[in-house]
Amino acid sequence: MCVEKTPWEQVVDFHGHTCPEISLGYRVAQIAMRELGIRPAPNSQLSVVADTHSCALDAFQVLNHATYGRGNLTVNEKKNHVYHFQYSGTSEGVQISIKTAVLEHLAGTRDILTTREQQTKDLEAIQFILGTEETLFCTILKA
Amino acid sequence: MCVEKTPWEQVVDFHGHTCPEISLGYRVAQIAMRELGIRPAPNSQLSVVADTHSCALDAFQVLNHATYGRGNLTVNEKKNHVYHFQYSGTSEGVQISIKTAVLEHLAGTRDILTTREQQTKDLEAIQFILGTEETLFCTILKA
Repeated sequence: MCVEKTPWEQVVDFHGHTCPEISLGYRVAQIAMRELGIRPAPNSQLSVVADTHSCALDAFQVLNHATYGRGNLTVNEKKNHVYHFQYSGTSEGVQISIKTAVLEHLAGTRDILTTREQQTKDLEAIQFILGTEETLFCTILKA
Repeated sequence: MCVEKTPWEQVVDFHGHTCPEISLGYRVAQIAMRELGIRPAPNSQLSVVADTHSCALDAFQVLNHATYGRGNLTVNEKKNHVYHFQYSGTSEGVQISIKTAVLEHLAGTRDILTTREQQTKDLEAIQFILGTEETLFCTILKA
């Protein structure tokens, strides 16, 4: 049977699991698309630079078509959840910085929680990340 | 309309274009799946280490579910088209080394060819990479 996947399903299927960071990436990818008028076309010349490596990157690969193989997804490691989207050859771009309240939901505490407790915590984090009002989620800076 | 994509279409759609290197990655990914009995399941714990960065990596992300975001696709840059597939926590793995005759089809000559000539050359390279006999394509070393 052939069922059209939603963007969320496409991201999670590609990534391999559901977690707070991929939820964060999913939301950032959607905001970038809206801000830049990016259509999810495979021939998009959008480049993404992430200021930290995390699961979030897989969302940019699927939704923004900025893939690691093609070289238009790179990491400039600064341990910050700041994401830069830029059309190559133009000054058109957007910077999306995740707010502190959201980052607290990403903090790892796996060593002191049971699997069940961690699953519950992750689910709460995902709900918060996907559902919180945009002004509380991130700061958007357009070039 | 919803049409089930072939593995090749999935790889090319994700990658954004057809090129010799993505063809190479596609073939290597398929060989690895056959050798290791990998099923294209999202929860696979397969890790891939590539001895060079190229478009080929995107095929491993789609077909072997070794994604850059999740951290089970890494590059150990040695400028060699050698690819290591390994199940985490086991000694089960396979190393696939591309043969010289194939690598010659990847050599870039873009500066001296017209666009049309380059397209023709790329198409010939893709046909060679996808169609050449496996013993001439690569060396397979199982762990």
